[in-house]
Amino acid sequence: MTKHNFPLSEVYSLLEPGPVIMISTSHKGKTNVMPMSWQTMIDFEPPLVGLIISNMNHTFGMLKATKECVINIPTANIAKKVVACGNVSGRKVDKFKKFGLTKAPASKVKVPLVDECYANLECKVVDSKLATKYNLFVVKVVKAWIDPKVKNPKIFHHNGHGKFTVGGKSMKIHFRLK
Amino acid sequence: MTKHNFPLSEVYSLLEPGPVIMISTSHKGKTNVMPMSWQTMIDFEPPLVGLIISNMNHTFGMLKATKECVINIPTANIAKKVVACGNVSGRKVDKFKKFGLTKAPASKVKVPLVDECYANLECKVVDSKLATKYNLFVVKVVKAWIDPKVKNPKIFHHNGHGKFTVGGKSMKIHFRLK
Repeated sequence: MTKHNFPLSEVYSLLEPGPVIMISTSHKGKTNVMPMSWQTMIDFEPPLVGLIISNMNHTFGMLKATKECVINIPTANIAKKVVACGNVSGRKVDKFKKFGLTKAPASKVKVPLVDECYANLECKVVDSKLATKYNLFVVKVVKAWIDPKVKNPKIFHHNGHGKFTVGGKSMKIHFRLK
Repeated sequence: MTKHNFPLSEVYSLLEPGPVIMISTSHKGKTNVMPMSWQTMIDFEPPLVGLIISNMNHTFGMLKATKECVINIPTANIAKKVVACGNVSGRKVDKFKKFGLTKAPASKVKVPLVDECYANLECKVVDSKLATKYNLFVVKVVKAWIDPKVKNPKIFHHNGHGKFTVGGKSMKIHFRLK
């Protein structure tokens, strides 16, 4: 995909709707990628994001060691690959290779973007003190990319037990108090 | 609405998809309610949830003072009321009254449930130490309610700038590594 720069001040609009995301990491020549949905915006600009990543996941150690990751936002057309990535550990498998995901170079971190995702957020860990108690990493988005051809991205949401909901009808609601 | 108990171990399946939620609070005989989307699951059971609430919001002070809230999950049919609640401060207006929302009694906290929401999670603040730095409140869900008549709740998601997406098509994806 050919991606354009996306303004950091608008990153919240990509993450606030609560999509399934994929975290890519890179350490000692090896890369990994895991899907997750336990994330929240923490601040607008610079965009701070909270990621809850279990210390049983390979990504936890990768993040601790390298302090870098990319948040990749997939659309429903690759949902099966995304779910597949969540059902095997990067300790055992090169998931990029196994599931045919393409690595694209990042600009500010040494971690590949997942090219098939319509948006990619390059991140630096700014606080991992809360990882011990809450598995919480606070990351700062330092560069954001978006595919300008994807107008209404069909992000999807996890409802537990392998059930997902794809984004449906859009609505605009502007409210002015009378 | 007549609501049933909902198992605490399944609460993640309500919050993980990233719906717009409404936080109700109660302090010194006054109640308040605000919509938000900056939240994440932190742990499964007991369910811990992280809420990012700006210290400029009336709810921030209510939570600090009382350590209690209810997370109410609305569906798209009341989206206009939900958005309206986000465009005025509880310091000035009784939002339950102004927007015709119904208070229903909670069982374990002194905060009303928003009856029009299909699910309600009674919460106690277990950690507000991170409220200063990150506006982060860690809350524990102590009781969960659900309307059993709502089979496929049309939760909705905020995409910024008054644009929302309603949950659309569902899909089941079960993956077994071959």
